[in-house]
Amino acid sequence: MKLLFSHADLLQRNGGEYSVLKDAFLSTDGALISYLGKERPPGAFDREIDLRGKLLIPGLYNCHTHAPMVALRGVGSDLPLGRWLRDEIFPRERRLTAENVYAASRLAIAEMLACGTVSFTDMYFFPEQTARAVEESGIKANLTKHLQMTNAENRARQIEDSLAFYKAYHGAAGGRIRADFGIHAWYTCDFDTVRVYADLCSDSGARTHLHLSETDDEKNDCLAACGKTPVQWFRDAGTFRSPVTATHCVALTEEDIAILRENRVGVVHCPTSNMKLGSGIAPIPELVKNGIKIALGTDGAASNNNLNLFEEMHLSALLHKGTMKDPTLMPTREILDAATLNGAQMQGRENCGELKAGFRADFVAIDMDKPHLIPAPDPAALLVYSAQASDVCMTVADGKILYENGEYRTIDIESVKFDARRIDLS
Amino acid sequence: MKLLFSHADLLQRNGGEYSVLKDAFLSTDGALISYLGKERPPGAFDREIDLRGKLLIPGLYNCHTHAPMVALRGVGSDLPLGRWLRDEIFPRERRLTAENVYAASRLAIAEMLACGTVSFTDMYFFPEQTARAVEESGIKANLTKHLQMTNAENRARQIEDSLAFYKAYHGAAGGRIRADFGIHAWYTCDFDTVRVYADLCSDSGARTHLHLSETDDEKNDCLAACGKTPVQWFRDAGTFRSPVTATHCVALTEEDIAILRENRVGVVHCPTSNMKLGSGIAPIPELVKNGIKIALGTDGAASNNNLNLFEEMHLSALLHKGTMKDPTLMPTREILDAATLNGAQMQGRENCGELKAGFRADFVAIDMDKPHLIPAPDPAALLVYSAQASDVCMTVADGKILYENGEYRTIDIESVKFDARRIDLS
Repeated sequence: MKLLFSHADLLQRNGGEYSVLKDAFLSTDGALISYLGKERPPGAFDREIDLRGKLLIPGLYNCHTHAPMVALRGVGSDLPLGRWLRDEIFPRERRLTAENVYAASRLAIAEMLACGTVSFTDMYFFPEQTARAVEESGIKANLTKHLQMTNAENRARQIEDSLAFYKAYHGAAGGRIRADFGIHAWYTCDFDTVRVYADLCSDSGARTHLHLSETDDEKNDCLAACGKTPVQWFRDAGTFRSPVTATHCVALTEEDIAILRENRVGVVHCPTSNMKLGSGIAPIPELVKNGIKIALGTDGAASNNNLNLFEEMHLSALLHKGTMKDPTLMPTREILDAATLNGAQMQGRENCGELKAGFRADFVAIDMDKPHLIPAPDPAALLVYSAQASDVCMTVADGKILYENGEYRTIDIESVKFDARRIDLS
Repeated sequence: MKLLFSHADLLQRNGGEYSVLKDAFLSTDGALISYLGKERPPGAFDREIDLRGKLLIPGLYNCHTHAPMVALRGVGSDLPLGRWLRDEIFPRERRLTAENVYAASRLAIAEMLACGTVSFTDMYFFPEQTARAVEESGIKANLTKHLQMTNAENRARQIEDSLAFYKAYHGAAGGRIRADFGIHAWYTCDFDTVRVYADLCSDSGARTHLHLSETDDEKNDCLAACGKTPVQWFRDAGTFRSPVTATHCVALTEEDIAILRENRVGVVHCPTSNMKLGSGIAPIPELVKNGIKIALGTDGAASNNNLNLFEEMHLSALLHKGTMKDPTLMPTREILDAATLNGAQMQGRENCGELKAGFRADFVAIDMDKPHLIPAPDPAALLVYSAQASDVCMTVADGKILYENGEYRTIDIESVKFDARRIDLS
């Protein structure tokens, strides 16, 4: 399939700065961007799409979520963390079936596509079901069968299952699915299992996705239990010898930051979740200053309560300015990098995350003809501070249009909503 | 006009708690709600509107904005406050004409209606032009010709102008427009003018709208200049003898909080603006604990950068949980009160801000058939944490449908957008 998108404004990244090429053309050839520029490209196309008045941006990356948790959306709001988990979340999760996870994954993907997300990094039960929904929908995802509640008895089986998932799914769906190694957290895994797993990850050339230092309690418990921080714990287990995507990183010491920097650990900032659960504020500007790569995540919908990357862009741009009383922190270009290019890199996806010839044709059109996007002196800033997920009028992944003007091209949305409403975890 | 809204889910407030009456009826008679309940009301109606699958909520109140500043949307993002004001905002504001303010007010009102806002409190230049746009559109507003840059020479004229505006506009447009007394801030007004003005306000039975303690610098400058905080300064000028709507209140002492409480000053929380400008975080949970009434505001679009109350609900629900590390702070009911009933009361509007027979027919329908609003175990929490302004499918003020399924009933939106894009302040 060859597509031509004409008369669009293209958000480009040059030398780390974003600018807009006005009234331009972008063409695709299969899964790749074949051309972009001011002149109409020669040749024949299967379809020409007029994007006058639309801003074309790279697709967004949601680098940490538990997609099927949309089934738990809105459950137990405003409760203390312990009661929320113990009385509301865990009992429902114990009732989740593979079929529920498939239905919830489809709902989550429908939500994400409508919000301009082209790829997500997930960690949840029954990942084969999420993979099935990813494969059918055309979205991309990094999935894992992660370690959780490990001990000497179940070590061999957990590692074997995780590895089997990795081998079966890495590169599936024409490369749209990538498999990661996954570790829930230091406090749900035993050190020896994580040590063995780290060696296997390194041997496989895989990436690891994990939760890290989400709260002060998590850090203090680790210090009390083994005299080291969670960051030191994973370093000592060898986890950081492979590329790592570490989510949250709210409670860090100066030494932790140095360890993350030296080991090129990427950090996923989930500001909504961290605020909603009362976890605190990750020291993102300090991490950026240390050259640590930042991506954005929604976390699961139970602690957000949606999968809307525009809100995470908005919040991550505002939050640190406010708490550090410095309006120059987390400027537009850092937020856009986090939502796009950094996310692609932290998923191990090459030639993704920018509008560039030869890159994957993953992009999103924003309808700029809305009262809240007028006037538009600085479209990049509008995107971060003013735009809404509902301004997305087209989502394209690997050159395939998945969502266009409110319609899904690969998803029967009425059946998805019907099936999701039938999930009963009570 | 008598309207019947059938099969809607109605968000009701009983004993300070919100609950939803499912599949119910609400009828209007002129500007008032004539009935709501489970049974279809008898009698004839001019139109019946089926709201199956929609949640009907009280209209939202934006209690602090500078509506015409949408003309400056997206100008000078990520700059230090001083440079932003001096180099970007002030030079453009000096070029604003009455015609610009009218065009920008129309754009702002179109944006607000689409976001479910039924009433706003404004402070800006050429308020007669904003009044004109309010009158034409059907929205409600509290407007003021405020004091700014006062001194002994211009005192008489400024007070006279403000009073003339009050007399001309208070109760205009069938009561949709209310006029307030307005004071920009202690640092742009001289004490004697404010003292005289406070007496006049008290004599008129009017309300006062002002900026108060937005930043540490503002508070510290006041202490250095006159040995009192801005809160003490206004108390000593007599301003608090009338009902006051005080915006920001970021930098408060314990004594300030006691003064606000004793004088029943209402506080408008503008979390996005406070964060974007690096002003800090207002101690809202502490104010709530002291029984001080809180409403929400977007502030002007130049420091937000939109007029979307859903974002302010979302942020005010999240921010304090995160910074104080307590997920029980600012629960759903407090956020909904701030966005609706408290706002109405702080505008001095009686019988507004709730869905109740005999109250003004100001309400908003939310389309709940969206992936990000499924499932819906707790619709009130969904509204605060998951819903988007774009889920608004109908906005009604004083019994008149102003916005319905993306269409404006009182505004020629294409001409509004065209005129707004032509504003040139460069």
